[in-house]
Amino acid sequence: MKLYNENLPAPNPRRVRMYLAEKGIEVPLEHIAMMKREHKSPEFRAKNSLGQVPSLELDDGTVISESVSICRYFEALHPEPALFGKTPVEIALIDMWLRRCEFVVMTPIGNYWRHAHPYTAKLLTQFKDFGESNREAAAKSLSWFDKELEGKEFAAGDQFTVADIMLFCSVEFGIYTGLEIPQDCANVRAWHARVAARPSAKA
Amino acid sequence: MKLYNENLPAPNPRRVRMYLAEKGIEVPLEHIAMMKREHKSPEFRAKNSLGQVPSLELDDGTVISESVSICRYFEALHPEPALFGKTPVEIALIDMWLRRCEFVVMTPIGNYWRHAHPYTAKLLTQFKDFGESNREAAAKSLSWFDKELEGKEFAAGDQFTVADIMLFCSVEFGIYTGLEIPQDCANVRAWHARVAARPSAKA
Repeated sequence: MKLYNENLPAPNPRRVRMYLAEKGIEVPLEHIAMMKREHKSPEFRAKNSLGQVPSLELDDGTVISESVSICRYFEALHPEPALFGKTPVEIALIDMWLRRCEFVVMTPIGNYWRHAHPYTAKLLTQFKDFGESNREAAAKSLSWFDKELEGKEFAAGDQFTVADIMLFCSVEFGIYTGLEIPQDCANVRAWHARVAARPSAKA
Repeated sequence: MKLYNENLPAPNPRRVRMYLAEKGIEVPLEHIAMMKREHKSPEFRAKNSLGQVPSLELDDGTVISESVSICRYFEALHPEPALFGKTPVEIALIDMWLRRCEFVVMTPIGNYWRHAHPYTAKLLTQFKDFGESNREAAAKSLSWFDKELEGKEFAAGDQFTVADIMLFCSVEFGIYTGLEIPQDCANVRAWHARVAARPSAKA
């Protein structure tokens, strides 16, 4: 088994590294130099046609891509400590927060990166006005998250879950692209500090 | 328990109805008139701050939103027939296909609907050039899916899974918005006809 990996600031490989650190699971890493576009090479696309890092290659050649799907594979193999929930309600609410992470918090950050950031401008056709509009959308999404965090330690309640990992790596990537946490989002700032203090945040 | 629902063409409530039909589970439905914006009313936002349909309200008042998360709740309660997989590899690959549905197939359809369709133009600020660019992106995503389907009956392999439900409802919504399946995508067309023939497709 090996995990194709790239280090910071790429958010998706970081999600898996942080998850593995929380679970105490060690997996051999193989570096794919995204800045050199190695993930878009024909050799790598033969493993994952979308050319995405992270990808997990099993010993029989099966390749699992998508950060959350890779984590679900390890969760099924190593259920404890449970980061995706145990009861039907826990499972559903943690998954809801995973999806809210992707569709509410990460989407405007991704759109900003893809359509307004100078780095991607060198690689892809951008729709700059649309991209810039995501600066406000990203701030609004964190203001919404701030209200939802009121009275809670973590995204899905009082327990740290995989939803916090995905949200944290997304918010950190937002900061990297220039989308700071708004000053008045006190709950998000406290949550961010709480998660950043975990040893897994350095993984 | 009740499921807040809207009928066709809304893709997300349809995903849950189709899933429940495949599982043979009956849940009381309560109609939320999305065309009248009932899902954005203060009363409904008190249940789901994002104002989304479908939402599942449990007897204790807990509200689960997100189509896939609602399905995961029922899957945990009623594991058979398994639509999210059983082994760690099945679980991971079906989840990978769910995510590919969202990020590869549904994203351009959603962007086209949000930023180029005349219906949403009445409700929201659109970035029309960006929106129109998603017509080509949507066609490209189905061409990619067409290659991935080569030699397979269903998205994740030879078994029908929840990934087919999510992909089917997304592709059907694309057709509704004016994004037809490209003529040369023979595998997608055959898959679409195969899934459309299931009784659950009428749910």
